[in-house]
Amino acid sequence: MNFGIDSIDYYIPKLSLSISELAEKRNISAEKLHKGLGLKSMALVDSDEDAASMAANALLNLINNNNINPSSIGRVYLGTESALDASKPTATYAVGTVEKKLEHKFGKRCFRNCDVLDITFACVGAVDALENCMDWVRLNPKRKAIVIASDIAKYELGSSGEYTQGAGAVAILVKNNPDLINISPTVGISTSHVGDFFKPRRILSNSSFKASNGVSIHEITNSKKEEIELFFEEPIFDGYYSNNCYQERINEGLEHFYNQKNTNYFKDWDHYIFHLPYAFHGRRMLLDIWLKWLKENKLFFQLEKEIGIETKENYKEWKKAASKSSIYKDFINKKVADGEKASSNIGNMYTASIFMSLISLLTISLQKNKNITGNKIGFLSYGSGSKSKIFEGTVVKNWKNKINKINIFKSLDERKLVDFKTYEKLHNSAIKNPILSNDAIVLTSIETKENKQGFRYYS
Amino acid sequence: MNFGIDSIDYYIPKLSLSISELAEKRNISAEKLHKGLGLKSMALVDSDEDAASMAANALLNLINNNNINPSSIGRVYLGTESALDASKPTATYAVGTVEKKLEHKFGKRCFRNCDVLDITFACVGAVDALENCMDWVRLNPKRKAIVIASDIAKYELGSSGEYTQGAGAVAILVKNNPDLINISPTVGISTSHVGDFFKPRRILSNSSFKASNGVSIHEITNSKKEEIELFFEEPIFDGYYSNNCYQERINEGLEHFYNQKNTNYFKDWDHYIFHLPYAFHGRRMLLDIWLKWLKENKLFFQLEKEIGIETKENYKEWKKAASKSSIYKDFINKKVADGEKASSNIGNMYTASIFMSLISLLTISLQKNKNITGNKIGFLSYGSGSKSKIFEGTVVKNWKNKINKINIFKSLDERKLVDFKTYEKLHNSAIKNPILSNDAIVLTSIETKENKQGFRYYS
Repeated sequence: MNFGIDSIDYYIPKLSLSISELAEKRNISAEKLHKGLGLKSMALVDSDEDAASMAANALLNLINNNNINPSSIGRVYLGTESALDASKPTATYAVGTVEKKLEHKFGKRCFRNCDVLDITFACVGAVDALENCMDWVRLNPKRKAIVIASDIAKYELGSSGEYTQGAGAVAILVKNNPDLINISPTVGISTSHVGDFFKPRRILSNSSFKASNGVSIHEITNSKKEEIELFFEEPIFDGYYSNNCYQERINEGLEHFYNQKNTNYFKDWDHYIFHLPYAFHGRRMLLDIWLKWLKENKLFFQLEKEIGIETKENYKEWKKAASKSSIYKDFINKKVADGEKASSNIGNMYTASIFMSLISLLTISLQKNKNITGNKIGFLSYGSGSKSKIFEGTVVKNWKNKINKINIFKSLDERKLVDFKTYEKLHNSAIKNPILSNDAIVLTSIETKENKQGFRYYS
Repeated sequence: MNFGIDSIDYYIPKLSLSISELAEKRNISAEKLHKGLGLKSMALVDSDEDAASMAANALLNLINNNNINPSSIGRVYLGTESALDASKPTATYAVGTVEKKLEHKFGKRCFRNCDVLDITFACVGAVDALENCMDWVRLNPKRKAIVIASDIAKYELGSSGEYTQGAGAVAILVKNNPDLINISPTVGISTSHVGDFFKPRRILSNSSFKASNGVSIHEITNSKKEEIELFFEEPIFDGYYSNNCYQERINEGLEHFYNQKNTNYFKDWDHYIFHLPYAFHGRRMLLDIWLKWLKENKLFFQLEKEIGIETKENYKEWKKAASKSSIYKDFINKKVADGEKASSNIGNMYTASIFMSLISLLTISLQKNKNITGNKIGFLSYGSGSKSKIFEGTVVKNWKNKINKINIFKSLDERKLVDFKTYEKLHNSAIKNPILSNDAIVLTSIETKENKQGFRYYS
C-alpha cells in the first residue's frame, strides 16, 4: 500500500512588497535580486495576521476544498519557528479556531480526539511533522493526519536578510493511497549543532539598562529581576556560513539516503524540491553536487566541451561559467525551475517553503500541460541549527484533479502591493488597524485580564 | 514483538529549597503543603543551568549507565516548554554538547545521522515524543530512539504557583524487546483549545512605555519599533480552571482509550502514573473517577458502609470523607503513592514529571522488594492548552537490573539546601556566579558577538 500526500492547500497574506522598490530604497541592484536570487515580490502579513491565523486559514482551506470531515483527522501537527507561546502550541490556536468555525457543520469539538502539537527545528520542522505523520498512517492505513507549516520570515530593516523576507502557510493531508504524492519510507538525515541562524532571546541586565536608559528594570517589570529577556522575531544569522551549512547537510543527507537506498539522484529524480530561503537558493546550492554527478555519470565531457576544461587556477571563474552553461540551464529548467516560481513572489516561508515549492511545481506542470504522473521528486529540506532531511516522492496519476482545486498564482496576482512607507510601518508594528478587511481568519484581540493575559483571540 | 522503554535516567539540579521555609516566609500553612499537596522540597537550578544543560546531563547519564553507542541512536526527541530559542531546537544544544563530550570515545560527530528536534505541548510534549518514537521503532525493530524531557517550572515570587516549582530532566531509551516497560500501541487522546496555563510574550507599546518610564523603546532597541515583546519563564495561569481542564481531558482521554481497547481501569491497571504539577495532584484528580469506577464495579457499597450513604445535600463533605476513607487510602497506597515520592522532593518538572513518576514507582518497588513484573501501568499525561494522552505499559522481568543503575532518592538526599534569600536571588537572576561548582554539563557563556549573539556554550 502507498502512503503520502493526498491533498495540499495554502494561505498567503494578501499584502506584498515589490522587490524593485525595496532594492531602490536600500540601494541594492534590483537586477541582482531578480536575476541572481530570483526575487520579484515578498508576502507581507497584515497587522492582524500571525503564524496561528495563517495556519488556521491553510487548515480551513484544505478541509473545505477537499470535503474533509474533521472528526476523521487523528492528528494535526504544525511545524513552525514563529510560535506565539513557549508552552501552548500555536497549533492549538489554529485548530481551536477552525473547530469553532466548523461547529455549524460538524457540531461541537470536531477535533476532540485529535492529537495536536508543534514541532520545532527551524525550517525543517514541518518535514519532521510529515515524517512522523507518515509513520503513524503506515502503522494503520485507516488513519488520516494533517501537517501544517506556517511561518513569518522577518529580518531587521536594512539587514542582508531583508530582501528574503516572506510569510505564509501550507497544509497537507497525509493518508494511504494518496491522490497527489506517494512518499517512500527512506529518509536521509544529517545533523550538526551549529549557530548559523537562530532566534535567541536578548538578555538585558538591570545594571547596564539603568546606566544607559536611566530607568530600572525593576520599575518596568514591577519585580526585583536583575535581568529581563527581549524577544525578537528577527533572527541572528550569518548568511554565508548558513549557506555552507545548508550545502554540507544536504550532501551528508544525500549520502545517508544513498546508504539506505541505492539511488542515482541525477537519473532517478525528475524534479528537485528544496527548502528555499530565496527562489534560486536550491539551484545555486546544487551546482557543486551537480558537477559531482556529471563526473559520476560520465557526462562531464559534455560540460567541458561547452565551457572548456576544469582548472584549479581559475576554478571560481570556471564554476561561474558552468553555472551559466546551457547544459546546467537545461538541467535547472527541466528539474528545478518550476518549483521556484511561487517563491519568487512570496519570499522565504521557512517551514512552509519546501511545500510551497511542491505546489509551484505541480501547478506549473498543470499549466504547461506536462504529464508528470509517475515522476520522481527528490525533497531536499534543511533547518538551520542544523539538520537536513532527504526523501523521495512519486507523482500519483490523480494529481491534476487535486492541484486543480487551488491556484497559487492567481492568489499571488490578487494581492495588494503596499508602498515602502507602509511596509516599514508594518515592520515596526506602527500600524494598529489592519490595512485590509480580511474575510479569512484573523487575530482579533489579545487578552489583557490578569490571569489570561496574552491569550489570543481569532475570528 | 514488544516495544517500549528499555532504560531510563535523569538529571536533577543539585540545589533545593525546603517547602517548610517557603511556607513560613509566605505565611502559608506548611502542613497544608505537606499533607494536602505532598510537598517537601523543590529542585532549584543554579545560575549556570538551563533546559539544555539538564537535557544534556540526562542524555549523558543514560548513555554512560547503559553503554549505549551514540551512533546506534537514530533519534533524540526532546519535549520541553522551557526552550531557549524560537528556531534552533534546545535538543541540538543538548545533543551537540554530549557529542563533543563523547568525541574521545566515539570519534567526531557520533550523532551525525541522528534525527533531533523539539516537540512543544506544555507538559505532554515528551509523551508526544515518546509516542512518535515508539511508532518509528515499531516500523523497524533495528531502530533505537532516545526521548528527553527537560523543564524548569518557575512561577512568580509570591504567586500561588510558587510552591509547586521544580526542575529536572529525564532521558529514556526506546527500543524493541525493552528491559523496563513494554508499551501497548493504544493511545487515548482528548484535545481542547483553552487558556488554562500558557507562556505568552508580553507586548510593551512604545507610547505607554514612554509615558510611564520616560524612556522610549526606540532608544532601547535602537530601532523604530513601536512595540517590543518581553519573554518571561513564568506562565500565565488559572490554577483552579487548569485543574478542571486536566480532569476533563483525562476523563475524555480514558474514554477514547476505552473505545479502542476495552479496559477495566480499576481492575486491569496495577499502577497509575500521572503528570504531577504537585505530588498529590494525581490522587486528588482521580477521586471522582475512582468513585465512578467503584459504582461500575459494584463496590460502592463498601465505601458507603464505611462513610455513610452518598448525599446530594452534603456532597462536598461526603466526598471529603470519601477521600479520607480507608478504602480510598488503600487504593492510593497500593496504586498511586509510590509514583508520587520523587515529586514530593523535586516539585513540578513539566514534561519530565510523568517519567520521574515512573522512576519513583520503580525505585520504591525495588526498595520494598515488590515483585511488579507483569504489572500493568496506566500512564495519564496532560498538557495545558490542553491535551491528555493515555497509554498503557507492562513492567518487564528485567526491570530490577535497569532501575538498580540509578538512585533518584540518593541524588535528592545529596542536594544542597539553600536559604530563602539565596532562593529569591536565584529567582531574580541576581546571582551571577554559580553557587556550586558542578562536575556535570553547565552553561559556560552566552555569545555577545553580533552575528552569533545569544548562542549558548556548554561544557
